[in-house]
Amino acid sequence: MDATHDPKRRSFVASANGHADFPVQNLPLGVFSPKGGEARGGVAIGDSILDLGAVAHLLPGDACSAAEAAAGDALNAFFALGAGPRRALRAALSDLLAEGSAQEAALRPNLYDAADCTLHLPARIGDYTDFFAGIHHATNAGKQFRPDNPLLPNYKYVPVAYHGRASSVRVSGTAVRRPKGQRKPAKETVPSYGPSRNLDHEMEFGIWISTGNAQGEPIPIGRAAEHIAGFCLLNDWSARDIQGWEAQPLGPFLAKNFATSISPWVITPEALEPFRIAQPPRPEGDPKPLDYLWDEQDQARGALDLAVEVLLQTKQGGPFRLSLSNTSHLYWTFAQMVAHHSCNGCNLQPGDLFGSGTISSPTEDGFGALLEITLGGRKPVILPNGEERRFLEDGDTVIFRARAQRDGFVPIGFGECRGTILPAS
Amino acid sequence: MDATHDPKRRSFVASANGHADFPVQNLPLGVFSPKGGEARGGVAIGDSILDLGAVAHLLPGDACSAAEAAAGDALNAFFALGAGPRRALRAALSDLLAEGSAQEAALRPNLYDAADCTLHLPARIGDYTDFFAGIHHATNAGKQFRPDNPLLPNYKYVPVAYHGRASSVRVSGTAVRRPKGQRKPAKETVPSYGPSRNLDHEMEFGIWISTGNAQGEPIPIGRAAEHIAGFCLLNDWSARDIQGWEAQPLGPFLAKNFATSISPWVITPEALEPFRIAQPPRPEGDPKPLDYLWDEQDQARGALDLAVEVLLQTKQGGPFRLSLSNTSHLYWTFAQMVAHHSCNGCNLQPGDLFGSGTISSPTEDGFGALLEITLGGRKPVILPNGEERRFLEDGDTVIFRARAQRDGFVPIGFGECRGTILPAS
Repeated sequence: MDATHDPKRRSFVASANGHADFPVQNLPLGVFSPKGGEARGGVAIGDSILDLGAVAHLLPGDACSAAEAAAGDALNAFFALGAGPRRALRAALSDLLAEGSAQEAALRPNLYDAADCTLHLPARIGDYTDFFAGIHHATNAGKQFRPDNPLLPNYKYVPVAYHGRASSVRVSGTAVRRPKGQRKPAKETVPSYGPSRNLDHEMEFGIWISTGNAQGEPIPIGRAAEHIAGFCLLNDWSARDIQGWEAQPLGPFLAKNFATSISPWVITPEALEPFRIAQPPRPEGDPKPLDYLWDEQDQARGALDLAVEVLLQTKQGGPFRLSLSNTSHLYWTFAQMVAHHSCNGCNLQPGDLFGSGTISSPTEDGFGALLEITLGGRKPVILPNGEERRFLEDGDTVIFRARAQRDGFVPIGFGECRGTILPAS
Repeated sequence: MDATHDPKRRSFVASANGHADFPVQNLPLGVFSPKGGEARGGVAIGDSILDLGAVAHLLPGDACSAAEAAAGDALNAFFALGAGPRRALRAALSDLLAEGSAQEAALRPNLYDAADCTLHLPARIGDYTDFFAGIHHATNAGKQFRPDNPLLPNYKYVPVAYHGRASSVRVSGTAVRRPKGQRKPAKETVPSYGPSRNLDHEMEFGIWISTGNAQGEPIPIGRAAEHIAGFCLLNDWSARDIQGWEAQPLGPFLAKNFATSISPWVITPEALEPFRIAQPPRPEGDPKPLDYLWDEQDQARGALDLAVEVLLQTKQGGPFRLSLSNTSHLYWTFAQMVAHHSCNGCNLQPGDLFGSGTISSPTEDGFGALLEITLGGRKPVILPNGEERRFLEDGDTVIFRARAQRDGFVPIGFGECRGTILPAS
């Protein structure tokens, strides 16, 4: 922990002080366009966004290089610099934006009202990989097929993952068109092509890759955390009826690749430092991870204590909370995901994106997908205004939020990951 | 068919006439570096490569624009132009390179000896998708798990596919390091991490995407073929022991994503026009494809008659033929793959790459993977020099070739897709 985490530090940007998401202790990075302007890198501070390229000349050494690398329309070059320049940028920005900053006058013209800006994907995503590290979700989903044996034998050894579609990842706020596809309900003998009837959300954490590795050279678990540039919220929209029919034997494909939504701000590992916790001990009888996934320090500090919330806003009302869970329910750490993904020599690249898998809690109030909440659509959820949902309807908006809170530190948030369902075309 | 297919047409580049792969009737596109030079787009003609950017000014209208779009270090911009400019470029190059061309003197300085050039990936691959359209392979692979019921119920309705890894696709000639990973042979009770013992090849066809589609807007089957820029050979290297342990329930991941090899030249739909055939009729009792996958013209002309060959060169000898199959054994057309991939609104982009799935013939002499040839390693194949193989050994080189041949036309080839196995690190 350092001066950037000091709870007494306040910003001259008044809206930052007490801001639910973006106090001066957060300083997340993203890509935005001011009204009528080009896309560029920025940092969120309260209700404003600071233009990084425009203030780079005010920053020293590594922080200046980092701001310059973040000045374009994607943060890949910034991610490629790794942890050192990212930390230098954070330290310098924290000083610059603090109350009493000597540079307040120089910064003011480069602060934009976030409400007037458009936010973009923060990076060009090379490859997108979706993990399955939410053990309660894996158990709940597995129960629908194998009630007595929901987790497959590999689950507690392998951080299971599959490749997703990079081209269809979209920034929060982008509407999501209900996909069409092949569905074959059990009561029908042949499939038909049409709009998905069982559209769902999946509440996931997103992990941005910073520096990569050369093909053929695994990243050791002890260095894996250094390869993470930051985190976001991720909605792995899922068409359950398409998934149920298509996914054997090679996994989900069209059930997922029509759209994935992410929150626009990259919350850095440094901002989350106060909210690090030990990986919760595995239940009695679970195997110890294999050596290439085991690191004492990662076990001691590799998990995060973050509340993650799913809200549903319908055309009639809301937003209503559908679930509240915590990132500590993930069975694998983020470093274990990096080490596993590269353990065969697969080359990761700056700007790759991982999804964590759906973060469900052990109890119903924290289930991260309607599949789990409604038992695959068999038991509707009743919303506070009396509406029922088995799956998502056209016009529904799903909103994810996350919040980090710990005594002695200023809480920070992630901003929203939001998407509204449009009718099938 | 047009003048570019005229079997009487010869090139002033003498090595092109009678060339096994690249006569003037082929004219495939790729990216190469002359010795000491930058990467740039080129066209293969016999044993030479013509620098496209350098000769663009000799070309008229659309052909000139196409050559300029192909002048850089990746063909994505050229692919994005679509079929019209690609056809114009082909027609112009065919004239320019023909015997008696008025431009011979202007072209000569821009022809490089292919043996002195380095070939690169032809495009920046946005997303890589691997289909499973080789029905004999799907049957053979399925038999190992379900001897009585090898094909799952969805196979004849869904062009099954999964997302692969774009970052680890490499051009022919790049060595492939044996991956490490988690393996759990049936006789062991817990998995261990180490070098794959069951490394395999998969003989596939690669499909390059030309123009894409907007997210949410499916490509209709009647227009799907227009979205294909060309074809290559693709080796979907597979670690069977890693695959067997990791792949449930979400499909193959580390068993495949350590490396995929492709041949460097993009063989255009126009070059393959003479080798188009009707999609072979489905066996009696198989369902007709759903409407979104059904197009009369695609059925009449959507398949290809191309011989595809797998050779193995060991440290002791070879190359020995392992199999000879034909692209007509694919159960789905390439247009059906495009239509299916986008039928949910998933957005394809110029430079996306599809694999066809392993192209096995119904008989053992055309099995496209060692998994099939050796019954999962239980029955070794004996090579002509007496060596045995169950799976690939360090130092083995796998070579794919393809050849299109039809009475009345000049045969064309694809060049090689080749990779040598390096020991695990």
